[in-house]
Amino acid sequence: MENIGYYNGQIGPISEISIPMTDRAIYFGDGVYEFCICKNGVPYLLAEHIDRFFSSMAKVRIIPDFSKDELAEIMTDLARRVDSEYAGLYWQISRGAAKRAHIFPENTTPCLYATVTPSKLPDFAKEIKCILRPDRRFLMCDIKTIDLLPSVLAAQEAEENSATECILHRDGRVTECAHSNVSILRGGKLITAPTDNLILPGIARAHLIKAAGELGIPVEERAYDLDELYCADEVIVTSTTKFALRCTTLEDKCVGGRDAKNFFALQGHVLSEFDEYIKARK
Amino acid sequence: MENIGYYNGQIGPISEISIPMTDRAIYFGDGVYEFCICKNGVPYLLAEHIDRFFSSMAKVRIIPDFSKDELAEIMTDLARRVDSEYAGLYWQISRGAAKRAHIFPENTTPCLYATVTPSKLPDFAKEIKCILRPDRRFLMCDIKTIDLLPSVLAAQEAEENSATECILHRDGRVTECAHSNVSILRGGKLITAPTDNLILPGIARAHLIKAAGELGIPVEERAYDLDELYCADEVIVTSTTKFALRCTTLEDKCVGGRDAKNFFALQGHVLSEFDEYIKARK
Repeated sequence: MENIGYYNGQIGPISEISIPMTDRAIYFGDGVYEFCICKNGVPYLLAEHIDRFFSSMAKVRIIPDFSKDELAEIMTDLARRVDSEYAGLYWQISRGAAKRAHIFPENTTPCLYATVTPSKLPDFAKEIKCILRPDRRFLMCDIKTIDLLPSVLAAQEAEENSATECILHRDGRVTECAHSNVSILRGGKLITAPTDNLILPGIARAHLIKAAGELGIPVEERAYDLDELYCADEVIVTSTTKFALRCTTLEDKCVGGRDAKNFFALQGHVLSEFDEYIKARK
Repeated sequence: MENIGYYNGQIGPISEISIPMTDRAIYFGDGVYEFCICKNGVPYLLAEHIDRFFSSMAKVRIIPDFSKDELAEIMTDLARRVDSEYAGLYWQISRGAAKRAHIFPENTTPCLYATVTPSKLPDFAKEIKCILRPDRRFLMCDIKTIDLLPSVLAAQEAEENSATECILHRDGRVTECAHSNVSILRGGKLITAPTDNLILPGIARAHLIKAAGELGIPVEERAYDLDELYCADEVIVTSTTKFALRCTTLEDKCVGGRDAKNFFALQGHVLSEFDEYIKARK
């Protein structure tokens, strides 16, 4: 099939799936989500995404009516149904469908929603441009919720400035991007914001850190500010779809681009890991 | 009818209305909303709610495909269809229905969604209890968006502590509640947080300020902190459904309850205004 929609067990083309107007995702953003990149029907790092999904659910007190294994089975089945070399597998859960009232509804089960759509990988050699904006998001960015309007607005500003991402900062402290993490290389070290409540613990970020470890590049997980961002040897934007891209323009100023050796070693390492993962599961 | 659902022109019982899975409200919280209380089919202060709705849309760059008058006509028609002395009229708009991508979709029109459900007024003589929590919401609380998960969690905590509301503060500065504004009376003056990006410019709050003006009670719109909250003569929680309620217990400590004269004068004034408004439109 060209694309697949899923809602509480119902499966079909996205255009044919509809959901009840009482789903709390619609009017409260009362849910959490995940997104995987798939190759040849295999969702990359599915188990890690499912672990984070269960962690997000626990943090917002949504109690799933399925196990991790059952969820993995549903998602693996959906991913296989789309005829595309690369595809994006998106899923979310909401607290349930009920009359609108802030407090948790009784006697409802969570609503599971998923889509699989054709996707493609970016040009990994491309140097990207980012813009910089104050971080206006909530103080629970460690949870992958569907309350994404501030990120939507930041991403749109990036688009209108011909940029790939919008880097966010809180009073000068660099947090992450609209829908990516951002790390820097400086003096041969990888510096990346700590996983507190201000950033999402990105899976691509975790694999960048792992790659650094395997390549012998020291890693500092600590807050860093705009000065360090502008003076970085490399600015690395990571996400599920971008893996690791090199940012060399920030708000029309040149940044990074001064440690190609370590950057491409890291990027090569995360891309090899992807290839090996998919090959092993074919 | 017992209740009414509306979606992009389709009207029916809420249980019969479904929406496409591509509506950006579902997976991005990419929308804004309003809520009015209705009596005998008349939505109270509809024009003010519509003004704020257009202001929210402008702030998040959603371009409506209807005028204020057209929206008022749709909402007035919906409100009349429900057989209940009191009803809640809820409506929201999302940026449109499209394949999931953060940037604004092209060639879509916004999706308008509404419900009308039976409601009732609170017991206005009742003294309420509130809990107190750090404000974890985003820095655009002046916009009435559907990204409400932090408010959902705060409201649930209130419920579990047998409280009516959860008062929020940022590092000691009182902002508002999970779904209400909060003001205080002190030394015969009404003190209420300014309408910056940390609070919603509540319509019930505006009518409380108006009542104070008409009763000769001086008003200070300024930030106030937890010390002032605990020392207040009265703590007043305002919202569309609560109008103005008196909070006398905060986290199991007694608060307020020391300026009954001014509190009940204010409450009486806002309730009279409601009665007169409805009577004039019967």
